[in-house]
Amino acid sequence: MNYRAVALPIGRLMILIAAFMLIPASADLLAQNPDWKVFLASALIVGGIGALTSVALSGQNLTLRRRELFLLVNASWAAFCLAGALPLYASGLGISFTDAFFESASGLTTTGSTILTGLDHLPPGILLWRSLLQWIGGIGIVVIGIWLLPGLRVGGSQLFALESSENTTKPYGRIEPFLLRLLTLYGGLTFACTTLYLLCGMSLFQAINHSLTTVSTGGYSTSDSSFGQFGGTAVYWVSIVFMLASSIPFLFLIKSFEGKISDDRQQITYLVIIVVVASFVIFLSQRWAQHDTPFHLFTLSVFHVVSVITTTGYAATDYLEWGTLVICIFFMLTFLGGCSGSTAGGFKMFRIALLLSFILSLLRRMIHPNRISPTRYGGKPVNTSVIEGVLVFAVLYAGTFALFGLAYACLGLDLLTAFSGSITALANVGPGVGPIIGPSGTFQSLPDIVKWLLSIQMILGRLEIIAGLVILTPDFWSES
Amino acid sequence: MNYRAVALPIGRLMILIAAFMLIPASADLLAQNPDWKVFLASALIVGGIGALTSVALSGQNLTLRRRELFLLVNASWAAFCLAGALPLYASGLGISFTDAFFESASGLTTTGSTILTGLDHLPPGILLWRSLLQWIGGIGIVVIGIWLLPGLRVGGSQLFALESSENTTKPYGRIEPFLLRLLTLYGGLTFACTTLYLLCGMSLFQAINHSLTTVSTGGYSTSDSSFGQFGGTAVYWVSIVFMLASSIPFLFLIKSFEGKISDDRQQITYLVIIVVVASFVIFLSQRWAQHDTPFHLFTLSVFHVVSVITTTGYAATDYLEWGTLVICIFFMLTFLGGCSGSTAGGFKMFRIALLLSFILSLLRRMIHPNRISPTRYGGKPVNTSVIEGVLVFAVLYAGTFALFGLAYACLGLDLLTAFSGSITALANVGPGVGPIIGPSGTFQSLPDIVKWLLSIQMILGRLEIIAGLVILTPDFWSES
Repeated sequence: MNYRAVALPIGRLMILIAAFMLIPASADLLAQNPDWKVFLASALIVGGIGALTSVALSGQNLTLRRRELFLLVNASWAAFCLAGALPLYASGLGISFTDAFFESASGLTTTGSTILTGLDHLPPGILLWRSLLQWIGGIGIVVIGIWLLPGLRVGGSQLFALESSENTTKPYGRIEPFLLRLLTLYGGLTFACTTLYLLCGMSLFQAINHSLTTVSTGGYSTSDSSFGQFGGTAVYWVSIVFMLASSIPFLFLIKSFEGKISDDRQQITYLVIIVVVASFVIFLSQRWAQHDTPFHLFTLSVFHVVSVITTTGYAATDYLEWGTLVICIFFMLTFLGGCSGSTAGGFKMFRIALLLSFILSLLRRMIHPNRISPTRYGGKPVNTSVIEGVLVFAVLYAGTFALFGLAYACLGLDLLTAFSGSITALANVGPGVGPIIGPSGTFQSLPDIVKWLLSIQMILGRLEIIAGLVILTPDFWSES
Repeated sequence: MNYRAVALPIGRLMILIAAFMLIPASADLLAQNPDWKVFLASALIVGGIGALTSVALSGQNLTLRRRELFLLVNASWAAFCLAGALPLYASGLGISFTDAFFESASGLTTTGSTILTGLDHLPPGILLWRSLLQWIGGIGIVVIGIWLLPGLRVGGSQLFALESSENTTKPYGRIEPFLLRLLTLYGGLTFACTTLYLLCGMSLFQAINHSLTTVSTGGYSTSDSSFGQFGGTAVYWVSIVFMLASSIPFLFLIKSFEGKISDDRQQITYLVIIVVVASFVIFLSQRWAQHDTPFHLFTLSVFHVVSVITTTGYAATDYLEWGTLVICIFFMLTFLGGCSGSTAGGFKMFRIALLLSFILSLLRRMIHPNRISPTRYGGKPVNTSVIEGVLVFAVLYAGTFALFGLAYACLGLDLLTAFSGSITALANVGPGVGPIIGPSGTFQSLPDIVKWLLSIQMILGRLEIIAGLVILTPDFWSES
């Protein structure tokens, strides 16, 4: 194992994250909040470590092979979460290190579960740092999802590999041609979202923070009441549009902007169908139960469905008071997630499409064993290794959800909190179900051990489970 | 579709089940209970229909192809459950048809969930009929599991196909050489179990009923307190031995009795390991919490672990009062089930073994993509189609569990009752978790629609889901 090859990119990324820390430092300096020193000090520490690593390792042979890549992606998450937690822990918040790490992991994985209350009264630096963590995490996840996971063949994502390569020393396609376009797209979405939020009546600070956490499908807000603090319906529809835009494949968006046609439309179709059906069922079930204008109720229905399925996690009202049917729908939506190659987490739409196609083809083969009935995605037959990857991901997803949920139940949580907490962390959604961690609660009161396990689950979700499990096998560490 | 070929074997089986109805008729006649007329009349009706069908269809070309076999296995379950419900509905119990069907389906699928209370005061005919339903169901399940499902390649069970055959007109190996030995083994186990129960102090009636429901891993009892009515520990150990014997592959037992070595030992190893570990954890967690002698507590721990994992469902005490850890363990055990080719239901041990091996091989292949790392069962590499079958079964098992559980929650059940009810029906265990359907409750109070859905789930569990889903596809019904 070439540890130096793993350490170098992490060191360079640390310099980057240190640079980002200067933004909340400036905000707090402007607001005359003493936390600016904390952010500056954190930037110096993190940036210093990064710079030392980069200098010490420059000029060496640092080829990343498969194993180094797996270690890199795991170690990066750990390093980023620690770096992000540093200013939160050292700031005037007075929170424990467990809470700081949880908040940082929840931010960087764009989950959006929070242990903080009284957000409305927090200094701007902390709020901006939380939003920035999600924004940084969001673009990181897109790059990992487009470039690294398909190359490493994680969970069937090889279906979207940039270029096919059986070369074990460089198992990934070239991301460089796309990198600038991805950053432009991500920045453009953020800028457009900020502008529209401003036009809908948000303050500049609210607009910047919420656009950072909308386009990253993160869900952190500047208020305990999340989107409940905004009136009217326009702001909800802006949010709906940008949450959806950020949960469809970024390469699809880029190709569309360039006037090209992408063959990866099937998962977008699935997403739209599920959003439309779930929104209408919720709207119709509440139409006569609530004293609300139909359009406002419809807006809230679509907003919450999109917020959960895109794994953003904003809330405008406690939708869990809308009855058992609505709770069940939101619980199911929490599992699903958005499209591959976007900032959204969860099971992902392309896997749902592939699973359905494979189960149908298997049932057909059972009736007619001698007839060829391949599994298809977007109309094209799909390789067996992709299907096996998807099936294993499904099993591990269900298994991880169940095992962590059982652990939380054994650690004293009620069943609803335990299992909805397990899936909301694994799918990187944010709020769970129930009075404690539901849309109107926080994760503050949970035991420390549960917060650490939830942090691990959030990162596992971002590693599509398999890339995290790999480094736990003895084969990974044996030199051969 | 050759419907006549499907109807003939069902007709013949109806004659068989009618013959079995004469046993409770005799018991009630001896006890001077008027229900003997109900059993006799039911026997005449069911037997008459069966005889008419057999006579009308004799001498025709009745080859069973794959599609007819799928229809046959589905239609048989429906016909058997209806026939079994007839005397229950017409008897002096005064229960609704829904309840009668539920009790019959729960019996024949050897689930053991009941809607009846006051079992201790019921006439002998009804009690004997419930036990016989489980005993008939048990041997039927063994035959289906050894002969039909592997031939139809359901859920990876082709691993145990009696002989490989790619011939679509006769997709199953020869069961005839094994049929007599299977019946002898099943009868022998029942006789031995009855004798030992008698020696442990049961009455003859108790011993017969409980041995019928032990060797079928069914779990119906003659008392509301189930095994709680018996004192001492000997009776529990007899039950443990015979529950375990009935949940390991019957062909393995036959080969062992004949002095041959079977290569299908891996799933038995898994079963034993899980039983030992779970029993010890439960025993140790209760060692200082309960005022019981260590040996009695150990006996109860093993008894309930074996009862749940073999999908029998006997209870001696309300073990759900033993704390959250114990509840979680039992909830997990409910999913697992016994070995393939036995009377036990659930996910099955060979699938757990294959899943683990496949996930490990996949993780290894991610590290070393050019190295061959096959999935193994019992040390031998396994065909891809077997693995795909197992993976799809796992996905459908989790999906069926979740969807039915959500349906029950939407129909007004609390979450614990909804989801434990869903898995206890699908895995054919019997008791759920919680005060309503736990080991000390009954399914009586559930809404009718839930009882029907649970009955469907029990049958789906016995069809290993896939064999039931097949007939819902349009391909199945299209003539081509």
